[in-house]
Amino acid sequence: MLDWTLENLSADDVARLRGIYEPLTESVRELIDATIRTEVDAETVAAAKAEIDAATARLRTDQVDGSYGIRFSTDGDQMPWGNVVIGVRNPVAPPLVVEQNESGVFADFHLGAAYEGPPGHVHGGVAALVLDHILGAAATSREKPRLTGTITLRYLRMTRLGQLHAEAAITRRNGVKTFTAGHLADDEGITVEAEGVFIQPRWARE
Amino acid sequence: MLDWTLENLSADDVARLRGIYEPLTESVRELIDATIRTEVDAETVAAAKAEIDAATARLRTDQVDGSYGIRFSTDGDQMPWGNVVIGVRNPVAPPLVVEQNESGVFADFHLGAAYEGPPGHVHGGVAALVLDHILGAAATSREKPRLTGTITLRYLRMTRLGQLHAEAAITRRNGVKTFTAGHLADDEGITVEAEGVFIQPRWARE
Repeated sequence: MLDWTLENLSADDVARLRGIYEPLTESVRELIDATIRTEVDAETVAAAKAEIDAATARLRTDQVDGSYGIRFSTDGDQMPWGNVVIGVRNPVAPPLVVEQNESGVFADFHLGAAYEGPPGHVHGGVAALVLDHILGAAATSREKPRLTGTITLRYLRMTRLGQLHAEAAITRRNGVKTFTAGHLADDEGITVEAEGVFIQPRWARE
Repeated sequence: MLDWTLENLSADDVARLRGIYEPLTESVRELIDATIRTEVDAETVAAAKAEIDAATARLRTDQVDGSYGIRFSTDGDQMPWGNVVIGVRNPVAPPLVVEQNESGVFADFHLGAAYEGPPGHVHGGVAALVLDHILGAAATSREKPRLTGTITLRYLRMTRLGQLHAEAAITRRNGVKTFTAGHLADDEGITVEAEGVFIQPRWARE
């Protein structure tokens, strides 16, 4: 079972919290990029590290136990803010903003140095991370969560770091199973194709 | 084509550089965790954000253009330090330390709040990220790089955040294709199974 937390928060509260924490997350994303790419000397690294450790200590003076989870406001707003793909409070998330259109879901996003595998290119596993999320989003409605059953990825060529597009749509439904397919693309076209089966967990079938 | 950079560095230089930058990366990993889990007030967030932005500015005074790439020392040490799964300079990487045994490769590692999908559990796409890397590592030798052709993942159950194990081995070879299989496990057993085909790129066949 999963712990979906209901917070005593209005939509205004949610917006206020997002206004506090999202800029912090964006600053940490910048820091991640700088940490990978910096060539400053040991002394400068030590000064930066001291500032980072001070910031971490401040933030840890009051924190939740364990991970963020998925919280809901009293107005029904879903707050998957710790999610590694879409979380507005997770600096590891690019983050993707998943949008809906007539045929399914899509996201346009940027992947920089933090997502590298082969030099200058997106790690094949990051393509899988993004596509698992997008295919799952195509299969899921808010009322009926679905989890990945199987997913298959075909890599047509390497994906350059930079501005990317991912999309997915439902291809078939069969009881508790929803079949979706989609792809990742850079500005020269499709780089990775995916298909998946997403399953409504037993505890979510009522 | 890929840019594999040969640096004019000895093994000692590599060790010295790692000693400078790896602790910085570890500090940023702690900061990522604190950023997701913190509940401090707006004033404290602002103070932490100012320290983080100051650190980023210091680090950016001298940095490489673009991503880190994969560099080699003159002694042949490979430095995939920007890699999103194993990079010792990439705060997004857990990082995995991939080890070899008689049957193939494995890694024991910890995934915390930064890798969450379902509440308290590893994002299905992160399982795919880790398994793509481990299956690829099983297929690859230093002399003969291989890239993912296809990979299929079967999710048996959700994977709890915490201490995890992944392993993979070669199941078959056929010309430029290497077939590998493996799994992800938590302390109660296997959670995700994977199989993949990894292909030696044309430019690496000479």
